[in-house]
Amino acid sequence: MSSRLEVVAPDGIPEIAPGDDLPALIAGALADDREIGRLRDDDVLVVTQKIVSKAEGALVDLTTVVPRPEAVAFAERFDRDPRQVEVVLREAVRVVRMERGVIITETHHGLICANGGVDASNVGPATGDVVTLLPRDPDASAGRIRAAVRDRLGVDLPVVVSDSFGRPWRWGIVDVAIGVSGLLPLEDLRGQPDHDGRVMRSTVRAVADELASTAELALGKSTGRPVARVRGAQITRGEGSIRELLMPRETDLFP
Amino acid sequence: MSSRLEVVAPDGIPEIAPGDDLPALIAGALADDREIGRLRDDDVLVVTQKIVSKAEGALVDLTTVVPRPEAVAFAERFDRDPRQVEVVLREAVRVVRMERGVIITETHHGLICANGGVDASNVGPATGDVVTLLPRDPDASAGRIRAAVRDRLGVDLPVVVSDSFGRPWRWGIVDVAIGVSGLLPLEDLRGQPDHDGRVMRSTVRAVADELASTAELALGKSTGRPVARVRGAQITRGEGSIRELLMPRETDLFP
Repeated sequence: MSSRLEVVAPDGIPEIAPGDDLPALIAGALADDREIGRLRDDDVLVVTQKIVSKAEGALVDLTTVVPRPEAVAFAERFDRDPRQVEVVLREAVRVVRMERGVIITETHHGLICANGGVDASNVGPATGDVVTLLPRDPDASAGRIRAAVRDRLGVDLPVVVSDSFGRPWRWGIVDVAIGVSGLLPLEDLRGQPDHDGRVMRSTVRAVADELASTAELALGKSTGRPVARVRGAQITRGEGSIRELLMPRETDLFP
Repeated sequence: MSSRLEVVAPDGIPEIAPGDDLPALIAGALADDREIGRLRDDDVLVVTQKIVSKAEGALVDLTTVVPRPEAVAFAERFDRDPRQVEVVLREAVRVVRMERGVIITETHHGLICANGGVDASNVGPATGDVVTLLPRDPDASAGRIRAAVRDRLGVDLPVVVSDSFGRPWRWGIVDVAIGVSGLLPLEDLRGQPDHDGRVMRSTVRAVADELASTAELALGKSTGRPVARVRGAQITRGEGSIRELLMPRETDLFP
């Protein structure tokens, strides 16, 4: 039989403001969307970080931010907003690279990314001086959405919270997972035979990241569709955490 | 309207041997597969590297390889096959990292990846001492598959050749593009307004990589399904090359 994967993104999720009950709104949109239809056990939900951060109030009003001298100097040199640079540095537990206008940091989550996930795009129409931060605990954010869908719709679906990250060596961003609930972010095939019956020695698939990229391909970047239902992905359910996907510094070849 | 993405992987592609006409075999499998049905203008084909390399004869018989002393020393220290290490070094134009048992190289294509894409898994049942190399010109490989599908089925579909790469900072592999034909690997949204009408300053989506990851999620790693048809992805057709996706060394923060 052919292998089939299907991604549908519901309409009907409104503009989100701090304090909105996002899990309930997502469950409602899924319940109402005809294209979505009845959810199934092999569905996974992918929710983009921006909408989660907005609902949770993970926002900073830049007019309240006083940048440190280092942020001012870097911003002046590379034509950036010194207040935003300041917020990036505040969110960092470690600066990995800070050169040529690019800041790569490790956040308190252990995520390593450009600008520590601090972002000014798609924040809202009347908020030119507001940036979003990453959710404080993206696994927990995913868990709350999972619980709301289970309570309202009676289906316990894995949830991935996604964000757009750049990568070394390659241009462009891809969506990756920053939080999960109800699935193992890594699919460990080590020790399983491959197609020829040989033992696959080193295949660990980052399925949570591939789910995020798949959803992005369906959602696009500017469509106002922050949730996707992915059906038919080869994943393993379980109480996973995004921490399993993050490489500890001591094993990293690019510290 | 909801956004919809659909991935189907045809059965019916046989075990491939060097010299097989892979483009014709893929076109035939697509023509015959009922699940695939009629191909459409918004379809993209994703083909995994391994099958392309095998058909093109990009194989090395390790029994013919005499490893250099550096390869022997590294292999002994980290329990690896010195002949395979030798092949990795031969394929490299530059060694990016060679430590803790991991070799990251830049290949002649400009791809930076672990082991230079040299791989022993899924090579074939009777070939314990054979490894695959990356295709010599993966854009051209994609182009030949595209041409065969166009000639046989009358539809000009973009083609992505994919491979599984690890990444810094995160565990696990994800599939990325190593060759393209008929689409732009980067979707450049810079200057386009986001959902709120703000200008998105820095959004360039690596759609070719997301197509590869999406196909992998449908195909799995050990199912013997080397081709996927992705329908409904938001891409831009055009005469792109994988080179557009590869960051030149002088702009790379991780040289």
